[in-house]
Amino acid sequence: MAPSILISEVGPRDGLQSIATTMPTAHKLRWVDALVAAGLREIEVGSFVPAKLLPQMADVAEVVRHAVARHPHITVMALAPNLRGAEAALQAGAHKVTLPVSASEAHSLANVRKTPAAMVQELQAVVQLRAATAPQALIEVGLSTAFGCTLQGAVPEDDVIRLAVQCAEAGVDEVGLSDTTGMANPAQVRRLFTRLRGELGPKAGAAHMHNTRGLGLANCLAAYDVGVRTFDASQGGLGGCPYAPGASGNVVTEDLVFMFEAMGIDTGVDYNLLMAAREALQAGLPDEPLYGMTPLAGLPKGWQPAA
Amino acid sequence: MAPSILISEVGPRDGLQSIATTMPTAHKLRWVDALVAAGLREIEVGSFVPAKLLPQMADVAEVVRHAVARHPHITVMALAPNLRGAEAALQAGAHKVTLPVSASEAHSLANVRKTPAAMVQELQAVVQLRAATAPQALIEVGLSTAFGCTLQGAVPEDDVIRLAVQCAEAGVDEVGLSDTTGMANPAQVRRLFTRLRGELGPKAGAAHMHNTRGLGLANCLAAYDVGVRTFDASQGGLGGCPYAPGASGNVVTEDLVFMFEAMGIDTGVDYNLLMAAREALQAGLPDEPLYGMTPLAGLPKGWQPAA
Repeated sequence: MAPSILISEVGPRDGLQSIATTMPTAHKLRWVDALVAAGLREIEVGSFVPAKLLPQMADVAEVVRHAVARHPHITVMALAPNLRGAEAALQAGAHKVTLPVSASEAHSLANVRKTPAAMVQELQAVVQLRAATAPQALIEVGLSTAFGCTLQGAVPEDDVIRLAVQCAEAGVDEVGLSDTTGMANPAQVRRLFTRLRGELGPKAGAAHMHNTRGLGLANCLAAYDVGVRTFDASQGGLGGCPYAPGASGNVVTEDLVFMFEAMGIDTGVDYNLLMAAREALQAGLPDEPLYGMTPLAGLPKGWQPAA
Repeated sequence: MAPSILISEVGPRDGLQSIATTMPTAHKLRWVDALVAAGLREIEVGSFVPAKLLPQMADVAEVVRHAVARHPHITVMALAPNLRGAEAALQAGAHKVTLPVSASEAHSLANVRKTPAAMVQELQAVVQLRAATAPQALIEVGLSTAFGCTLQGAVPEDDVIRLAVQCAEAGVDEVGLSDTTGMANPAQVRRLFTRLRGELGPKAGAAHMHNTRGLGLANCLAAYDVGVRTFDASQGGLGGCPYAPGASGNVVTEDLVFMFEAMGIDTGVDYNLLMAAREALQAGLPDEPLYGMTPLAGLPKGWQPAA
């Protein structure tokens, strides 16, 4: 039986680009292999940005080529902030390209130096490029600051939904909502994903939640309750220290897998093999603290996975 | 308008009894006063156990007397493991006495050296004592290990509900469910509280969740979804280090208040005054680490409380 939900591992991109240390390429490949062995079926393996901006991602094309060659049965995803990045990602063979589009204009200008409207035009160009060069590839949008912005404060829900519709109309395959700054709450998550699914139908995408204020799992539960079935998470909570002010603090993959499996919801991920992947991650970043409550506490006595 | 939910602060009991340091009495009183000033309307101020077992609680009668004299409008609660403790709690003037009854026989023997059945008999004696000496006082049961036990493993849900019914029939006013060992998941929380409320009606009590595996807030959300309106929490997450194996790790009051208020659910608690109470707590335990993600991250830009 197919797993009930898809956990999309973003650690090799969102996690590794957020820390100062650069993980050696060989370790990245071993970590990705270990994640696949644990049952992760979608992995965001890197970001196509200039190496001078993010030296941690200088080897992204090599990582993508390794992953698609070794693991053709999973979805190898890469982030691209613009058309040029998307072109490189498709050339490297990425199965899926994800583009960040900010719902907050202030964040959009700070993050990609474009307005949201200009990013929608960029999406159209990416969709045309995809049709011409790699028609089998998927294009995803993650709507950043969909639940609030540290620069702008509250982001009107109507703005978020309107922008999501514009992205879908630009021809992308999925539009997810990202709690970039850890401001989401479960009531808001239910409202926004309910509207998103109502407007976009099967193009409504992943919940990308952060744990900045401890609500990451509660927000994932809320998203699940209204029908979301794809959840971004980062192994070891990489992506900013969750215990420091202003940290990004991605939802920890280990804790998310534990929660859903304990609920009887099959993630397709083997918790013990996920712990082996955690060791591969730690081996590649020996000085970096990894987070996660379940890894510290261990599985409960009498634990049974969902499937 | 009355707040929508009741957050029952258990830190002065559950928190302080779990750490090696004893908070000086004057600091306990200041902390309790600060909690009341922040809007907490039910506070478990201590435990009536022999001082040789828990020296941290040697001054419990004094703390109860202070709290009931100074704050007659809130519910001053104390834990009592048995009839003798309940007698002392009622003599000190506690508005509410809470007794722990373990759903797991192994845990019951380890915790109070009695079987669950013997504890139900003890409850009957406490209810008789209450009628004879303090008819206005309330008696609450917290069903420990209701979601699993580190000694026994899984605890059958039928056992939990049967025991809850026996406690209610013994004449107590409320029966809550406690995730003593951090093994609960949201699906289980919804199932058990739905059954509890179906069987006990208005006697169905609080959700006492731990954050051992990071699911504390998700489990509180799940309990709220099925109608629970009273939630135990501990300021600063006191009650065992949530980052250590086997830790108890109570849900952090600050994070719980943030979650519900952000959802638009009025807790009656002022977050900023709660941070002042956190300072009073830290002043009384200068060397003890306090937990909580929201206190570290701060309130989001544009924050609005529920009421």
